Amino acid sequence: MSVDLLVQKIKEKSNPSVAGLDPQISYVPQYIREKAYKEYGKTLKGACEAIWEYNKGLIDALYDVVPAVKPQSAFYEMYGLEGEALLHKTIQYAKEKGLYIILDVKRNDIGTTAAAYSKAYLGKTDIDGEEVEALGIDCVTVNPFPGTDGVKPFIDDCKLYDKSIFVLAKMSNPSSGEIQDLITDSGEHVYEKIAKYIDTWNSDTIGKSGYGAVGAVVGATYPEQAQVLRKLMPKSYFLVPGYGAQGGGAEGVKPCFNSDGLGAIVNSSRGIMCAYKKGDWKEEQFAEAARKEAIRMKEDLNSVL
Amino acid sequence: MSVDLLVQKIKEKSNPSVAGLDPQISYVPQYIREKAYKEYGKTLKGACEAIWEYNKGLIDALYDVVPAVKPQSAFYEMYGLEGEALLHKTIQYAKEKGLYIILDVKRNDIGTTAAAYSKAYLGKTDIDGEEVEALGIDCVTVNPFPGTDGVKPFIDDCKLYDKSIFVLAKMSNPSSGEIQDLITDSGEHVYEKIAKYIDTWNSDTIGKSGYGAVGAVVGATYPEQAQVLRKLMPKSYFLVPGYGAQGGGAEGVKPCFNSDGLGAIVNSSRGIMCAYKKGDWKEEQFAEAARKEAIRMKEDLNSVL
Repeated sequence: MSVDLLVQKIKEKSNPSVAGLDPQISYVPQYIREKAYKEYGKTLKGACEAIWEYNKGLIDALYDVVPAVKPQSAFYEMYGLEGEALLHKTIQYAKEKGLYIILDVKRNDIGTTAAAYSKAYLGKTDIDGEEVEALGIDCVTVNPFPGTDGVKPFIDDCKLYDKSIFVLAKMSNPSSGEIQDLITDSGEHVYEKIAKYIDTWNSDTIGKSGYGAVGAVVGATYPEQAQVLRKLMPKSYFLVPGYGAQGGGAEGVKPCFNSDGLGAIVNSSRGIMCAYKKGDWKEEQFAEAARKEAIRMKEDLNSVL
Repeated sequence: MSVDLLVQKIKEKSNPSVAGLDPQISYVPQYIREKAYKEYGKTLKGACEAIWEYNKGLIDALYDVVPAVKPQSAFYEMYGLEGEALLHKTIQYAKEKGLYIILDVKRNDIGTTAAAYSKAYLGKTDIDGEEVEALGIDCVTVNPFPGTDGVKPFIDDCKLYDKSIFVLAKMSNPSSGEIQDLITDSGEHVYEKIAKYIDTWNSDTIGKSGYGAVGAVVGATYPEQAQVLRKLMPKSYFLVPGYGAQGGGAEGVKPCFNSDGLGAIVNSSRGIMCAYKKGDWKEEQFAEAARKEAIRMKEDLNSVL
């Protein structure tokens, strides 16, 4: 199971963290932007050239520190077709560096359409008998709002192509509670109901690591809920956003881990990408600063495990 | 408000329906596929060439019958970068024919990321002061699972750039109830809670038509729930999937409309796209068959309004 590969990479690097690649243009050092604009103007192409150099520098500096990267699709889609090409190029480069790829897309739809999304990222696209891989990454995030028949096509591809998914259970943002924290007539919160579905979906996908292909997204900003969710989904890996910039620290993410020190991978995007903007770094040292922050985060996480 | 434009187009064509463009390769007539494969092979490029000719034929046959088209992003994403280019080309062509474009993407994320998604489709991407339109369509579908701060960036762009959105309230698929039908401690279903949010979000976006920029997705397959939702969101347009192939008929979608005969736009994808597969049509008549089915559907809907 693909999650075993993730666990193996986490163990090899003694690092349960993932570097988010959410490249807002304002994150990119000025000198890189200016070089790209000089050649391509302030265009979608120019922005993507600048972000490509930035992403490449970050991946080069991080690939032996972190086990995984998590590109956020929105920050590529916003540059149109140029952005899509940049996303593919970034993923290809990170793959070559041996990184586990979690693409944050939060896709969701009814059965047949969910199957198309799954083929786009995890599975293969059938072209009259020819099976073609459109992108072929390790893992995507999935929104469970449509229920089982919207999630199942992704799970089928996890089994067929050895992939994994993280399903949204409790998000990190302030208003996540509006739907996710609603209390149902059984006395359980919506996020608990979802957790039970995830645990069921996960049950026949357990790999050698003891974890299954169906993980959960659980925000670092809600440690109390994380504690409850950890118990409800003992064999699901957690993808944990909200560390650092969103406010959650290492103590906050601790409840997302199992007692074996496994079971969670903590994301940091801005904290790592923009590390050069804090302290005495020069712009040209953006990659070095990112590496130092990734190492600091690794040590911070390991200090509570 | 962009929704006024939709209402105007619906009135002009006396047709409250939208043609879904969900082009599975098996929908495309054999002779079109063979021609494309001969030139490009059974590749992503070959598939997209075939689908392009199919989409173009459909748009040519439908643009004076239907007010809007709804491409489903999944069926383009599954062809990778070629599919993204096909989606852009299809949208551009439909725009030139005067059609209102509803892109079914069901995007969702926390605030800053939701803003990036909104820029990708509705708003403009800021490149150091240059505002560039990455795609620039009329309307997208949005998943409300992250709550208000995940939806607000889309609404901000609706106001700024005169666009509209449809937020998932009650989906058409069999398992949609697993989360959406949960009963909360106030006695209301989750879909009712969402409806109240949508009504609130919509309240300061009301246009001349009496409808606002924040509509709702309400499945044709659940007419009882639709009746409740119609009352909770009187000023929201409904995007109604599930007519025809998914089982809902004209009587089933009636509760989605207001007493003025407005308030809903009903989607048909496979029913229109694959009309040539029913009856005595030749493959070469796929566009004519689609047009005939679109006209039949229009008359069917008007018969109950």
